[in-house]
Amino acid sequence: MRLLSIVDLLFLLLEKRKQPMHVGGLFLFEQPEDADPDYVLSLVQQMQSSKTPPTFPFNQVLHNLAYWEVDEDFDVEHHLRHIALPKPARVRELLAYISKEHGRLLDRARPLWECHIIEGIEPESEGRPKRFGLYFKIHHSLVDGVAAMRLVQKSLSQSPNETITLPLWALMMRHRYQLETILPPKRTFGAIVKDQLKTAKPVVSELAKSLSQGSDSNFVRTTQAPASILNQSISSSRRFTAGSFDLERFKRVAKNLNVSINDVVLAICSGALRQYLESMNELPKEPLIAWVPYSMRKDESAAGNQFAFILCNLGTHLDSPLERLKLVHNSMNDGKSRFGRMTQSEVINYSLVSYSWEFVNVLTSIYPKKQAFNLIISNVPGSKKKLYWNGSELRALYPASILFNGQAMNITLASYLDRIEFGIVACSKTLPKVQNMLKLLEDELVQFEQVCHEIETGVRE
Amino acid sequence: MRLLSIVDLLFLLLEKRKQPMHVGGLFLFEQPEDADPDYVLSLVQQMQSSKTPPTFPFNQVLHNLAYWEVDEDFDVEHHLRHIALPKPARVRELLAYISKEHGRLLDRARPLWECHIIEGIEPESEGRPKRFGLYFKIHHSLVDGVAAMRLVQKSLSQSPNETITLPLWALMMRHRYQLETILPPKRTFGAIVKDQLKTAKPVVSELAKSLSQGSDSNFVRTTQAPASILNQSISSSRRFTAGSFDLERFKRVAKNLNVSINDVVLAICSGALRQYLESMNELPKEPLIAWVPYSMRKDESAAGNQFAFILCNLGTHLDSPLERLKLVHNSMNDGKSRFGRMTQSEVINYSLVSYSWEFVNVLTSIYPKKQAFNLIISNVPGSKKKLYWNGSELRALYPASILFNGQAMNITLASYLDRIEFGIVACSKTLPKVQNMLKLLEDELVQFEQVCHEIETGVRE
Repeated sequence: MRLLSIVDLLFLLLEKRKQPMHVGGLFLFEQPEDADPDYVLSLVQQMQSSKTPPTFPFNQVLHNLAYWEVDEDFDVEHHLRHIALPKPARVRELLAYISKEHGRLLDRARPLWECHIIEGIEPESEGRPKRFGLYFKIHHSLVDGVAAMRLVQKSLSQSPNETITLPLWALMMRHRYQLETILPPKRTFGAIVKDQLKTAKPVVSELAKSLSQGSDSNFVRTTQAPASILNQSISSSRRFTAGSFDLERFKRVAKNLNVSINDVVLAICSGALRQYLESMNELPKEPLIAWVPYSMRKDESAAGNQFAFILCNLGTHLDSPLERLKLVHNSMNDGKSRFGRMTQSEVINYSLVSYSWEFVNVLTSIYPKKQAFNLIISNVPGSKKKLYWNGSELRALYPASILFNGQAMNITLASYLDRIEFGIVACSKTLPKVQNMLKLLEDELVQFEQVCHEIETGVRE
Repeated sequence: MRLLSIVDLLFLLLEKRKQPMHVGGLFLFEQPEDADPDYVLSLVQQMQSSKTPPTFPFNQVLHNLAYWEVDEDFDVEHHLRHIALPKPARVRELLAYISKEHGRLLDRARPLWECHIIEGIEPESEGRPKRFGLYFKIHHSLVDGVAAMRLVQKSLSQSPNETITLPLWALMMRHRYQLETILPPKRTFGAIVKDQLKTAKPVVSELAKSLSQGSDSNFVRTTQAPASILNQSISSSRRFTAGSFDLERFKRVAKNLNVSINDVVLAICSGALRQYLESMNELPKEPLIAWVPYSMRKDESAAGNQFAFILCNLGTHLDSPLERLKLVHNSMNDGKSRFGRMTQSEVINYSLVSYSWEFVNVLTSIYPKKQAFNLIISNVPGSKKKLYWNGSELRALYPASILFNGQAMNITLASYLDRIEFGIVACSKTLPKVQNMLKLLEDELVQFEQVCHEIETGVRE
């Protein structure tokens, strides 16, 4: 029995029909060349019939919104879904399936996760083996997006020859030595409150500084984000779209323009958003503000929620990609230097306090024309090493995050091997044709590559 | 724009995460012998690409929980789902898919229905064509179960040769002449209240009679139902199980024992429930009470909600099947004679008033040990004629109804051709192995058939 943390409880209370609070990940595998026709079925049956109980946190069930308990009544049939896509089973149809699943609430009477195995996906190109998808969804109160992606990846193998006989949710047994770091430290409620109060003073002084820095152009005030169609009341319908980009392309831009890769990613998102909104005559005159989560996790633990946020000015009002990138870069640097002066606990408290009225917005479902930010753009850890599952190569992994009422789009990124993987979730009722965003991201990246080419060839300095 | 009726509103207000308020139907088709491999895909694509808008009630979207409006923003991709079952794709796997779908809430920002086409189901027997399923779910506030089954069936054809090019939800165009009867009469709110008040007097006198009839053994009081495991708090997980029985078997029992077919059905359900509960040592000493809906629809209209209820003593405390049947028969007759003295409006009001504290139970989520009834056993219309959809023969239709918190099982029946089709919905977290109910229904029917055999051969009188 574990007490719910305040943040865990918040994610449970925030959950509504139109606002499910789970994160998801789509893992796309290519079957081995010599796989027999029942390959995926065997994988599923092995997991279905396993006697090994799920490990933490997959065995945790809610008790009266107060405690997490070990589920003594684990029903694998509820958690593991096996489905096929009818022809034509392209990635497009796979994303349509995930879109529908991602909008659905988890059953609170069970451990808050589901694992979907989707088979029958057509090969990447002619002559290659068939593919199958693994969609994992887990409640944000159980683990954050960072931990969720880590959990699944840790369950996979780095070898194409390793046979994994345990189900994914029992695989943490492979990493017994890590269990210590995954379980949050046992602390009493009193100790938690004491620790939070201790940080009150530095936070207040940093907040005071923030208020006095209204004239600093790189500082983003929490009332600066303009009204936009991204900030409407949402429905429970979701559109999930995803795509991969070579990391090398971002590196080249970052190097040539002397900024971080993350700055380039944010600038590319900004450009795509500008085009997307402009195509509907919905581009606000003021720049869009992104809420960029900043992981406070200093250890390897995979469970629990520990993060802070930087408000980033996306400069969507600027026509020039380079000007936009410069604004993004300065805005991110300002946020980082602010957090550099605080301890981890202080940063978390600072974030909670300074964006608390956004939480109030979300909790009370009131949407003033001014909001603290327009969308969340976040980053979850991927893997630099090629991963396998019983001989099947992981070809791509796409994160799928949460929408809040009044926040109809979310962009989340992960890196895998030499690629950056984009997963975009949107309310399909509020925002039309979000799948266009992928093409717009590509267009924007090409623009920056042209600038790089000019710099490299000496046409531009 | 149409005002919500009070009953429609009730079904919307009753809806919770654990208590979705939609009804469903599973229609199982056999493809034509000469169907090409893309047969189902073509069916789906035809519906996806149709320019014909959905007809009433499929075009109705909620506005502020006050009005129904025509949805001007119809997105077929949201409402039509196309999926396949991986091998082994037996009826068991199909029912598992429906179980998961049936527990999920509809999106209130759209017309409240979904249509799932599930392909790849293995043939009934070797050499026969492949099958596919059509699962239709629609909110109870839009139509009741009776109307829902009618809507889908009306869209099908009685000829194997008819080509239906319109989507199911636009097919009411085929029956233009019926639209008049489907649209509820245009009445002001005042007129509705006036009509309801007019019936108050006869209802009060009938209620008084009910209270004074406490000593009549056939009369079921609304405080008589015992506590049972059927009457626990439910989760959002569902188990749907379904099966077909030859109508002739029920007819034979009814004829030999001089009762109605419906009495036999209820007695069979009673016996199966007795066995199911006994196997878990959970059979209450007092008899289970079923709430049996009694359709008040006097016309052919397919939309809206019009029904009353009879409380039926299932006699589950009795070991003898014949004694149970006798009790069921007398209990049903008592209910019918009571309703026979009232007009349609009066019956509806009587039902609402006398079971109103059960509504209070459901609304407030308080579960006293005594409840008005233990489960709902209902009947929805089927078809006596063989039905087709673009050459595919409808082989079976199974209704899937609603669970209320505190009512963890529902049995709904439909007749199709010469069969009775059972659809049982249960909370899979609260009630284990509900699929066993089908075998138990069969066992119970066999017991009655043995009695018939004894009567027919003169061994028993």
